[in-house]
Amino acid sequence: MGETVPSPSGCGEDWATLRCQARFLFATPPTRRFISGSVRLRTVLFSMCLCVMFAAQLVAQSATPAAGTPAAAARAYTAIHQSQLKAGFEAFLAMPNVAADPAGLRQNATYLVNELQKRGATAQLLTVPGAPSVVYGEIRTPGAQHTIVFYAHYDGQPVTPSEWATPPFQPTLKTVDGEQRIFARSAGDDKAAIFAQLAALDALKAAGVALKANIRFVWEGEEEAGSPHLEEILMAHRESVHGDVWLICDGPVDQSGQQTVVFGARGDTGLEITVYGPHHGLHSGHYGNWAPNPAMMLAQLLAGMEDANGHVLIPHFYDGIAPLSTLEKQALENAPDNEAMLREKFWLGHTDGKGAHLLNLLNLPSLNINGMASAQIGARATNVIPPTATADLDLRLVVGLDWRTQQQRVIDYIRAQGYFVVDHEPSQEELTSHPRVAMVVRNENSYNAVRTPMDLPIAQEVIQAVEAARGKVVLLPTMGGSVPLGAMERAADTHTITVPIANFDDNQHTANENLRLQNLWNGVETMAALLAMQ
Amino acid sequence: MGETVPSPSGCGEDWATLRCQARFLFATPPTRRFISGSVRLRTVLFSMCLCVMFAAQLVAQSATPAAGTPAAAARAYTAIHQSQLKAGFEAFLAMPNVAADPAGLRQNATYLVNELQKRGATAQLLTVPGAPSVVYGEIRTPGAQHTIVFYAHYDGQPVTPSEWATPPFQPTLKTVDGEQRIFARSAGDDKAAIFAQLAALDALKAAGVALKANIRFVWEGEEEAGSPHLEEILMAHRESVHGDVWLICDGPVDQSGQQTVVFGARGDTGLEITVYGPHHGLHSGHYGNWAPNPAMMLAQLLAGMEDANGHVLIPHFYDGIAPLSTLEKQALENAPDNEAMLREKFWLGHTDGKGAHLLNLLNLPSLNINGMASAQIGARATNVIPPTATADLDLRLVVGLDWRTQQQRVIDYIRAQGYFVVDHEPSQEELTSHPRVAMVVRNENSYNAVRTPMDLPIAQEVIQAVEAARGKVVLLPTMGGSVPLGAMERAADTHTITVPIANFDDNQHTANENLRLQNLWNGVETMAALLAMQ
Repeated sequence: MGETVPSPSGCGEDWATLRCQARFLFATPPTRRFISGSVRLRTVLFSMCLCVMFAAQLVAQSATPAAGTPAAAARAYTAIHQSQLKAGFEAFLAMPNVAADPAGLRQNATYLVNELQKRGATAQLLTVPGAPSVVYGEIRTPGAQHTIVFYAHYDGQPVTPSEWATPPFQPTLKTVDGEQRIFARSAGDDKAAIFAQLAALDALKAAGVALKANIRFVWEGEEEAGSPHLEEILMAHRESVHGDVWLICDGPVDQSGQQTVVFGARGDTGLEITVYGPHHGLHSGHYGNWAPNPAMMLAQLLAGMEDANGHVLIPHFYDGIAPLSTLEKQALENAPDNEAMLREKFWLGHTDGKGAHLLNLLNLPSLNINGMASAQIGARATNVIPPTATADLDLRLVVGLDWRTQQQRVIDYIRAQGYFVVDHEPSQEELTSHPRVAMVVRNENSYNAVRTPMDLPIAQEVIQAVEAARGKVVLLPTMGGSVPLGAMERAADTHTITVPIANFDDNQHTANENLRLQNLWNGVETMAALLAMQ
Repeated sequence: MGETVPSPSGCGEDWATLRCQARFLFATPPTRRFISGSVRLRTVLFSMCLCVMFAAQLVAQSATPAAGTPAAAARAYTAIHQSQLKAGFEAFLAMPNVAADPAGLRQNATYLVNELQKRGATAQLLTVPGAPSVVYGEIRTPGAQHTIVFYAHYDGQPVTPSEWATPPFQPTLKTVDGEQRIFARSAGDDKAAIFAQLAALDALKAAGVALKANIRFVWEGEEEAGSPHLEEILMAHRESVHGDVWLICDGPVDQSGQQTVVFGARGDTGLEITVYGPHHGLHSGHYGNWAPNPAMMLAQLLAGMEDANGHVLIPHFYDGIAPLSTLEKQALENAPDNEAMLREKFWLGHTDGKGAHLLNLLNLPSLNINGMASAQIGARATNVIPPTATADLDLRLVVGLDWRTQQQRVIDYIRAQGYFVVDHEPSQEELTSHPRVAMVVRNENSYNAVRTPMDLPIAQEVIQAVEAARGKVVLLPTMGGSVPLGAMERAADTHTITVPIANFDDNQHTANENLRLQNLWNGVETMAALLAMQ
């Protein structure tokens, strides 16, 4: 792909031009081989309208922090130290941080302990055998009434370097439509948050703004693997990690570019389903029409799980969902409607949900096929009846649903389709004595959804602090993505509120992950306001 | 897999023991990771019954060629020269013969020209630019009234060496249940036939049996790629390649192990279908329920193509099929019923076709999913809404169906499901202006089915020659697999009759291809009888 960059941001909050017209139309995505056909006038005009609409909306909402506030101190600091901050962020991003590289993860953790200590925090690694350490830091403030805990994670999703335009651990600055972005694994998810917190501490110190609360940092190294050891580690240090609130600094801000505060996250679980045809690949000519094809069996099994609008048909799939409160419903109504922009940006000719809004749909459980495979396609395809077909399913959960129950609902559905379900590679006898056999492997690294009521006093205080820094803020009851908030709340005996800073189109979890640098500067201001809370 | 060998043959024709009991039960297949569970008495007894049944049936059918016949000469010859023949066959199999290695294919062709010339044939390469040569040979017999053409192919399917227990071009003899097999690419498909023809010439010469007809050899080098240049090459040499009959020496004999004569083959075509979700992978949490999942779309599209019994639901899919004649129906009724053995051998708990017999089902067109892929499964799976999902379809055809029409029927079905169908990677505008878009790439290397009437005089003569060599013979109107018979018949102005020699479980088209050596010796006898025809 050479110098091709991923399709960039939607209309960000600092927009004042119509440059997005070009961005919508001529961005070359990294995952399509080539794009043919000319772009017609109709699309051009539609995109221009969109941009005018968004630019007008966002200019009106941009905010300058009031003089003397923590956010103003942060803005002054980042303006002066931009080069130095960029270099520091690049050095952090250059450290490989994937699960397959434990030494790389250790390097990150050691670096962070040192960074915390340089800023006067006590810092240590919280460890259990066989897992990346949690980096823990604390700044005690004499006379403080409250303790605020900042959670983020320093590990990143696995990388396939061949899919990247520039190496994932060689941070690369690129100008995309006049704005700088930095491309590297974890640029957005989630090193940006950690770096913003460190920079915010420096900014407050430089401006002489004193902290008022006790501050704690919990930076995890295993989030992208589903946080299998987090609860155990936190439970072993319950007193240290307790706080009046945990601020979860992870995920993207609203697609409109506005700062967002989120009061919960969907839970997450998954299943891998394998169905069986002949015990080795058979010639599709000599046995076609007679030997069952597992790819077709899998297609038929999956097809019945949803209707054509993405509504899940598995019995009881939506049973037990805790309803949204009036305040939560109101927040959703006040949130920006970014869908026309997103459809255009993602090249979508239709969406699931029968026209329902994305933000409302994120407050429902989902069933997603992460991947599907049987034999080979393309140049490696042969005329064969494959022996197996496999699908990897991701199930998102909302409050009121339990992950084991949700897994079981899918398994019950598979059984109801005539499958004998096993949790192991089936034997010859199991296969020959049942018409249809499915191996279903449950993802045990799973957790339920969590939602903090928006009317709690601490919730209102966080909202006020963020609004003071960033102006109007988008409030969301639930983030679509998942963070193991429940484990945190149980272990730290606290509530969680999520304050993300990354741009929504940061390509997190895929190749060419990036952070729009303006999001980093905004993030430093937001973190400064939260660090300076009462 | 180390020394693991693929699950071996069903009850072959030389069986007189119950060793198959062990073969059914304890063979370790190459494609399953591990097999758990114990085998119960019920299965043991069932398998023993099967073996007794088959052994009894086959012993009764084994034949000793009458003294003085060409087949008897061949049997005497192979008995004396077995070591030398094995070594010669191994040398032939050691020459790489895949499309990706044109030099290897040339080595094979040159070798075969030389082998023909050593046996007194005139021989040459028939070539067109950019394609492997056809090896052509001719033995003129003074006073001959007829010309018999022997077709086979010297190229093999692509190989993935990591999937093989022993290297594909390092022929390896292994004893499987007391019988020798040779493992190598093309051991069964289709170098065995060529080698048997060469050995049969030697056997007839050694016994002083004179040829009565003119003999021609047409050995193709591009069959596994769909024979895209065969018709062009044959058309350029119409006179040379003409004959009273073309004997197609390719494919496996009946699963019972009995010699088989086949009067046609299914045609073959294919399509690759890709459907589209977001233009790059999206986080399944942040967009799940809203951004359409192409794996689910593909599953729903494919699922509707067949019912749960494998009956194709695409409108008109079965329209136009030429009915079988009375003789053909009778032949199918007389053919062995191997299905209980095959179900056990392939570990099948059910079969498609609502209980219809395999041989009858092979006289219908089929739709097979060769492979299916979207994003990743297993350890490489991530929680993503994939950008695309792809399926590779194989369509087999019977007489009366045209491959372009059959492709179009599938495409019409895709359109009827609401898809905008393109033959190229769709543009942004094509994707955003249609709810659903499918790219369908047609396989143009396709051909129709062919069936030679069994009551033609030449057909009856071939049957008699084979029966004289091998005793009772299985007669089939149609082979399930495909050979470009139509191109041969048009170019050579002839009829085709297929006389295969390989064991049915030779793993052709997959890893660990092999030939049961007894099939090679039987094949030499069969070829001797055919070479010596009037």
